[in-house]
Amino acid sequence: MSRKPFPLAKVYTLIEPGPVVLLTTAQGERRNVMTLSWKTMLEFEPPLIGCVIGGQSYSRDLLMASKECVINIPTVDIAKKVVSVGNTTGARTDKFKRFGLTPLPARFVHAPLIDECYASLECRLADTRMVAKYGIFVLEVLQAWVDSAVKDPRTLHHRGYGRFMVAGETIKLRSRMK
Amino acid sequence: MSRKPFPLAKVYTLIEPGPVVLLTTAQGERRNVMTLSWKTMLEFEPPLIGCVIGGQSYSRDLLMASKECVINIPTVDIAKKVVSVGNTTGARTDKFKRFGLTPLPARFVHAPLIDECYASLECRLADTRMVAKYGIFVLEVLQAWVDSAVKDPRTLHHRGYGRFMVAGETIKLRSRMK
Repeated sequence: MSRKPFPLAKVYTLIEPGPVVLLTTAQGERRNVMTLSWKTMLEFEPPLIGCVIGGQSYSRDLLMASKECVINIPTVDIAKKVVSVGNTTGARTDKFKRFGLTPLPARFVHAPLIDECYASLECRLADTRMVAKYGIFVLEVLQAWVDSAVKDPRTLHHRGYGRFMVAGETIKLRSRMK
Repeated sequence: MSRKPFPLAKVYTLIEPGPVVLLTTAQGERRNVMTLSWKTMLEFEPPLIGCVIGGQSYSRDLLMASKECVINIPTVDIAKKVVSVGNTTGARTDKFKRFGLTPLPARFVHAPLIDECYASLECRLADTRMVAKYGIFVLEVLQAWVDSAVKDPRTLHHRGYGRFMVAGETIKLRSRMK
């Protein structure tokens, strides 16, 4: 894959359409990956993303401890892996090995990029004040990577109970919106 | 359209895939509609949705004053209207009349449903504590309506600068996830 740096000011174009993502974390020898759909852009630049991680989870513990993570965006090619990651806890299993996801070193954080994902956003935990009430982790994107060969990624969009809408055609309309 | 009540516990299946929405507000004789992409589910039931409305806007004023709104979900059939709404302020224009959107009375709130949208969620403003810092309005869905004839809605997903991904095929994978 031709993984290239991607402008921080355009990160919202990756997150705003609502794809399912794989969030990776690492702390010391421990690492994990979780499937996540509940997130929104909060600011264009520096890009801030609010990710909702409710309840107790291994990823949440690692994120709180390390204050870092990577948001990786998969496409339909690895849909089965995405669902398997979502169905499994990482507390006693290395999900990277079990489901054949290849961790790659990131630039600014210890959490790994996932080689099988077309985009990866290295993030630092910027605000935890909304965690207790809503499970919202505010993440600042420090570095974005995108496979520049992928123009219209066939991302996954969760419709519940294992049903996923796969990104279809792209249309262009005259807009003054960013 | 055969607009039917939709179970509150399944509202997340409408919002989670990340569609662009039209948010309507009303206060006294004033009403407005805005285009919005930055939002996330926060809780399954009662359904809570965090909508990001940054900066000053007419819709934000009406939402703060009335503490109510409706989240309407359009499909590609009215894509041009969706973009036009996003390009225009409602402070001096009735965008419903100007762009041919039909307001219908809601059940619990004064803000209108939009007849041209396949789904509408009547909401009350539940928490404003994250408005100052992040523009996050926490909305509780009181009543959901869906056109029961629409199975795989061709929703719009903003990729920036007037480019929209249109919802494609739906795939089903075995999942223990909700």
